[in-house]
Amino acid sequence: MLHMASNVLETSIAYLYDKECGFLLLYLMLYNCNSFLTLAPSFFSIEIYKHNKEERIARTWGTTARGLPYVEEAITNAGDWLIGGDLEVIEPIKYNDGLDQYRLSPSQLREEFARRNADAVFAFQLRNPVHNGHALLMTDTRRRLLEMGYKNPVLLLHPLGGFTKADDVPLSVRMKQHEKVLEEGVLNPESTVVAIFPSPMHYAGPTEVQWHAKARINAGANFYIVGRDPAGMGHPTEKRDLYDADHGKKVLSMAPGLERLNILPFKVAAYDTKHNKMNFFDPSRKEDFLFISGTKMRSLAKNRESPPDGFMCPGGWKVLVEYYDSLAPPEGSSKLREAVAA
Amino acid sequence: MLHMASNVLETSIAYLYDKECGFLLLYLMLYNCNSFLTLAPSFFSIEIYKHNKEERIARTWGTTARGLPYVEEAITNAGDWLIGGDLEVIEPIKYNDGLDQYRLSPSQLREEFARRNADAVFAFQLRNPVHNGHALLMTDTRRRLLEMGYKNPVLLLHPLGGFTKADDVPLSVRMKQHEKVLEEGVLNPESTVVAIFPSPMHYAGPTEVQWHAKARINAGANFYIVGRDPAGMGHPTEKRDLYDADHGKKVLSMAPGLERLNILPFKVAAYDTKHNKMNFFDPSRKEDFLFISGTKMRSLAKNRESPPDGFMCPGGWKVLVEYYDSLAPPEGSSKLREAVAA
Repeated sequence: MLHMASNVLETSIAYLYDKECGFLLLYLMLYNCNSFLTLAPSFFSIEIYKHNKEERIARTWGTTARGLPYVEEAITNAGDWLIGGDLEVIEPIKYNDGLDQYRLSPSQLREEFARRNADAVFAFQLRNPVHNGHALLMTDTRRRLLEMGYKNPVLLLHPLGGFTKADDVPLSVRMKQHEKVLEEGVLNPESTVVAIFPSPMHYAGPTEVQWHAKARINAGANFYIVGRDPAGMGHPTEKRDLYDADHGKKVLSMAPGLERLNILPFKVAAYDTKHNKMNFFDPSRKEDFLFISGTKMRSLAKNRESPPDGFMCPGGWKVLVEYYDSLAPPEGSSKLREAVAA
Repeated sequence: MLHMASNVLETSIAYLYDKECGFLLLYLMLYNCNSFLTLAPSFFSIEIYKHNKEERIARTWGTTARGLPYVEEAITNAGDWLIGGDLEVIEPIKYNDGLDQYRLSPSQLREEFARRNADAVFAFQLRNPVHNGHALLMTDTRRRLLEMGYKNPVLLLHPLGGFTKADDVPLSVRMKQHEKVLEEGVLNPESTVVAIFPSPMHYAGPTEVQWHAKARINAGANFYIVGRDPAGMGHPTEKRDLYDADHGKKVLSMAPGLERLNILPFKVAAYDTKHNKMNFFDPSRKEDFLFISGTKMRSLAKNRESPPDGFMCPGGWKVLVEYYDSLAPPEGSSKLREAVAA
């Protein structure tokens, strides 16, 4: 089997995030039989199977339309064979990008929660900068958990650290922004653990949200905050959302293996122009509320426009503006300079 | 919600086969608000949701390629909304096609197994005429169960009774063929219960086989015979099988909710030209074996050619030949007659 498959093996990615094995993110680049054999000792058992890309894509995303970001990044050009089996962790992977201290394994996270005497852990999955609407939600969740009788609920702020689509804010910038949010007291550092969730983003809606939730159970969470259309996106070729907005929430409440997790549905927060702060949306006075989407937020930061007061802590906003400044295309800036000089 | 949706409701099919409700196959034809209201009392709770056909097809079949038989039959032209909820059985549906005595509900089947004092029930799902290879498999399964210590294993021969693709043999012909198989003693009538499984055939491989198995658990089976590529078919637009041949078996052994079922993997039977009978394939003398596919079987019967001795009981084969005779196109026969007359 191995011999037969060795000529067609090109690239395979084995990915595991498991409480038994600890943190493990193993990329196997298999170009030929020799390099394969070098890696073989780390496998207790080996399974090689055909990579049916169409079926994998259809069952994961519920569409085979072109333009799914993760599919184009990691599947379309991948090889025709996949390899799996039991893996042995040789050593935790270091990225040496200044963020390794945030890369905590599930067992390290459990230890951290124990050290803090947490009696409830609630997880927040995110791939965007934290604005005060997110923060409101997290602090309100803590308040509810205290009301339920927990003495020390701890938040796992768990930004996704793998592949994200091109227009998302990069990890290093987001981590700086999250640091500011804690420094400026928007979230309480004493009841918050910030760690990087090493998964790539699949934008696979109801399928992916199960992975997001299951991985956080393994890391010690027993409450999971879920929003509208989690891990969803627009249909890549049609003018509509790819998934029903309630599908992810419904799946989480029914999926086998997630029974231990309490799902906390996300209330919708928006900018309350009456009180000049992020607030839970009140349909009885909907004209007072302003919804600021991720796209809108990015375009404000890009154009050095300020968001309304109270949308995000000033230090966090500055991180975003500086990031977009650093991206300004050289031609654009030189044109601007010329115009000024003239 | 109901009012909003009433104008777009066209046709919706609610299908349920449940041990609590007994046998239930309910087709709701909803053309307008009035006919909907007539049916409304049978619902305890009503859920209406958008019919995302692309997502439904992709997640069920693992492809969105055109030409999937059930998709073309029942999904492509269906409406844009679906209706679900709890259903009340008003009365069992009668087809009045001479086969209603075979339409046993799960609770009727359980009663029948109890009446026969079965201590093990093994189910065989089929949508084809029974040849002696199938029969060998079923009798051998019974032998294995007796060896395991069961005193009275009973076979549930459970042919699928709903939609099948155009080139499959129709239900009425298959039921006549199954009758002959029992009459001629190929299967023992004392340890065999023949009943119609009212489901349409989806040809959805690993997804559908879970439904096939779960429904038989509800009907009292605790052993399920599974073959190579169950419910599979060729890819509708590419020259390959749609599913990996082992995928269905693997899924059955892992799917939540199927823990109670013992999966009996199908041995491959083929025509043994040395012993002139169907036999389990022996790779050490593979040149002695002849594989007769469903397509080959149908083409032999169509052309009034005889299969090798011992492939199928004579009475059963006659049923097939007579069926294909009855299909002979009138032009064809008249041409033949002219040719003879000339």
